[in-house]
Amino acid sequence: MKENCNIKYSLSLVFLSLLFAISCNTSQEQEQEQTSSERSPNFVIVFADDLGYGDLGTFGHPTIKTPNLDRMAVEGQKWTNFYVAASVCTPSRAALLTGRLPVRSGMTSNKSRVLFPNSIKGLPAIEVTLAEQLEKVGYATAAIGKWHLGHKEQYLPTNNGFDYYFGIPYSNDMDLKTDKGYMEYWQDREAIKTEDFNVPLIRNTEIIERPANQNTITKRYSEEAVKFIQEHKNEPFFVYLAHNLPHIPLFASQEFIGTSQRGLYGDVVEEIDYGVGQILTALEEEGIAENTVVVFTSDNGPWLPFGTHGGSAGLLYAGKGTTWEGGMREPTVFWSPGYVKPAIISSLGSTMDLFTTFSVMAGVPLPDDRIIDGVDLSTTLQNGTESPRESILYYRGPELYAVRLGDYKAHYITQGEYGQFGEREEHDPPLLYNLSHDPSEQHDIAEDHPEVIQQIEALVREHQSKLVVGEDQLAERE
Amino acid sequence: MKENCNIKYSLSLVFLSLLFAISCNTSQEQEQEQTSSERSPNFVIVFADDLGYGDLGTFGHPTIKTPNLDRMAVEGQKWTNFYVAASVCTPSRAALLTGRLPVRSGMTSNKSRVLFPNSIKGLPAIEVTLAEQLEKVGYATAAIGKWHLGHKEQYLPTNNGFDYYFGIPYSNDMDLKTDKGYMEYWQDREAIKTEDFNVPLIRNTEIIERPANQNTITKRYSEEAVKFIQEHKNEPFFVYLAHNLPHIPLFASQEFIGTSQRGLYGDVVEEIDYGVGQILTALEEEGIAENTVVVFTSDNGPWLPFGTHGGSAGLLYAGKGTTWEGGMREPTVFWSPGYVKPAIISSLGSTMDLFTTFSVMAGVPLPDDRIIDGVDLSTTLQNGTESPRESILYYRGPELYAVRLGDYKAHYITQGEYGQFGEREEHDPPLLYNLSHDPSEQHDIAEDHPEVIQQIEALVREHQSKLVVGEDQLAERE
Repeated sequence: MKENCNIKYSLSLVFLSLLFAISCNTSQEQEQEQTSSERSPNFVIVFADDLGYGDLGTFGHPTIKTPNLDRMAVEGQKWTNFYVAASVCTPSRAALLTGRLPVRSGMTSNKSRVLFPNSIKGLPAIEVTLAEQLEKVGYATAAIGKWHLGHKEQYLPTNNGFDYYFGIPYSNDMDLKTDKGYMEYWQDREAIKTEDFNVPLIRNTEIIERPANQNTITKRYSEEAVKFIQEHKNEPFFVYLAHNLPHIPLFASQEFIGTSQRGLYGDVVEEIDYGVGQILTALEEEGIAENTVVVFTSDNGPWLPFGTHGGSAGLLYAGKGTTWEGGMREPTVFWSPGYVKPAIISSLGSTMDLFTTFSVMAGVPLPDDRIIDGVDLSTTLQNGTESPRESILYYRGPELYAVRLGDYKAHYITQGEYGQFGEREEHDPPLLYNLSHDPSEQHDIAEDHPEVIQQIEALVREHQSKLVVGEDQLAERE
Repeated sequence: MKENCNIKYSLSLVFLSLLFAISCNTSQEQEQEQTSSERSPNFVIVFADDLGYGDLGTFGHPTIKTPNLDRMAVEGQKWTNFYVAASVCTPSRAALLTGRLPVRSGMTSNKSRVLFPNSIKGLPAIEVTLAEQLEKVGYATAAIGKWHLGHKEQYLPTNNGFDYYFGIPYSNDMDLKTDKGYMEYWQDREAIKTEDFNVPLIRNTEIIERPANQNTITKRYSEEAVKFIQEHKNEPFFVYLAHNLPHIPLFASQEFIGTSQRGLYGDVVEEIDYGVGQILTALEEEGIAENTVVVFTSDNGPWLPFGTHGGSAGLLYAGKGTTWEGGMREPTVFWSPGYVKPAIISSLGSTMDLFTTFSVMAGVPLPDDRIIDGVDLSTTLQNGTESPRESILYYRGPELYAVRLGDYKAHYITQGEYGQFGEREEHDPPLLYNLSHDPSEQHDIAEDHPEVIQQIEALVREHQSKLVVGEDQLAERE
């Protein structure tokens, strides 16, 4: 009977295993079901500062190593035609968070490119941020890193839909304490130190450190993001992690100083990449990767006059401050095991689309009392199909300089910046480039394609007929 | 007893399974053992023509889609500092196949940049090609595609160690039949047709088609490579697949025309990428992928004066014909499930190293009666560690223009090409760039690093003290 027992025991085991297998399956299916539709997805936006189009491994940099972002590109979607709405900091950030061209919100100006420590205003309260959208449906929201949409208390993240804020209120090169001029200070790179920049570090609305220790700031931002994710793993969350680097002055923590073949700029980018890896790991360890969308991009192109302390636009022409591609096209990757199908997407996207896409994915209606410039990219993320976005408007301050429609870009005005890439010049007919064939904007084909210029002009007329220019929020200073 | 039987039967099954598992394991181990050491590895070199550093997805191109090469980069090694020994066709190919600087073999000249249809000579018989090396240990060898090392019969691949040849003997833009001048012909891109180029297609030593139908030539090259692999799967083989595209004039087969977002140039590159995919698939289907090393690179940088019919050097400066990085650094990937550990290698490599590396891997002694410039990269391939190569010599014709030692490159002479990038200029002290920090060669730091210039000069003296300049093989024409 002993043997018989054993058989029964064996059979029971088989039965149990089968049962277990079935129940496992069911529970997995249920979980997937819940992941994909019942529970709202989490969103993590990692936003770099002045990172160039060519500064990631997957975007072709030879000596900057970004294994985590490269992994996101392979497992997720690499977007090769993804844009910001302005080539400098403040308006670019306003556009991302509101889904609207900065010219509408007044967060761009021909009197002041960005907000400064003596600026008075910030993002108008009437603007709806992505955090305010997601808050409506119960998201936990955190802004970590650089804000630059107003440093007076009423303009800080906690008054713009974010439950939590940890970061610096404007650029890391502001509040420079030096007897020298700004540009003169940068001549001696070895002497640059974090104490020279009297930038405050704020938690919620309170200054907790001044000057902010920028040596450890990238590490601390990544850690804050991970902590917020871990603490809010059981509710939908939105983390807006806006690193203030690799904007000059460059700093990295002890673990990264001197480690990159690209020098200090590489140390900084590689520390940001490492933080991205920590975030992916946290999402996986908490079992919420499937239900989280992570996107990485940058606020504008590289600040080229700063030499090797600035980045590279790769094959794109010019950089930060200009409406050439190098100023406004950004290295962008989306990653989510549950929501993003691996693909290379070479159709158009914009940081403004994050507002619309994430609102749609979270089931929050878009504001219907204003023009939203964002486009819903969720189908493209899910299926890897072409993006529905058809055009890009390249504003410089409140002026429209260039327009991309499909493959073609017309420059009505070109202007270099920071002493590079030439003076302001108006073009009639506009310069015309086929960006898909000629990404470096080298071969003007306006003569061959008057019909394209006509189409673009129709688009401009349509846009301008509905445009209400917002009151300038950047000009006023103390 | 029936139940008892069943137990015995079950136990026997378990025992058999265990035995099977053990024997499976052993056979797998044996197979691996054999793969890694007993049977010599197969080698496939895929060599593009005038492809730029920035022209693959994994090297940052926004609209050229190269999923197969991208896959090789992820599963294998992406080399971001890999060089050719000359920035034009003939000397670059001579260097790859002999592991020697073209100045030693006489396959470079200040009288003729490359061989032409009326050239008389070719690769001297005394030179040892990689095919001749591998032939010594029983490899089946094939040269498929463009040769350009002499089109007289004695210079053809079948007289240089290759069992089989299928391809064109020189560039695909030669033998142009037109009443116009060469440059004038290119003005009307729409009118370019394959019949205008009276280039012969040769099998072994026999012309089988003239003019070669270039519309289908990329496809036919890839198919020839696959066929050779399939036919020789049971012996060690070496395939040198040297596509004659994307060198102008651009042609693609019907299946690819009009399919790339990058236009015709993209169609061509994507057809080459597709062929690479066919080769990987064939290797996998034949069960020999594990034992095969595939490397992809190009003969020199993009031919920039041809606008969108030329490629892009990405973030590198200048292109074909120059000793700037854009002329001589190539997008390179190595792939082998058995011999190549996935990594991004940003230390130095050269096409000349293929001669040495593959000779070592095949167990063939290097010629000991001459200087070989190749370095053995097999340890780097196997372990992903730093490359042992320390320097790169940038020759233009028989003149040394620039030298890279580690991160630093000194330009003694700079000179543009084809009307771009300036006239010949000598530099004393040389221009000095840190290529790891400054890949676009924008910031001359000669003043700050006299010690580096001294080290480079010592290297030049050492090199020149041993240099015997080979007799010019390119100058003589009919």
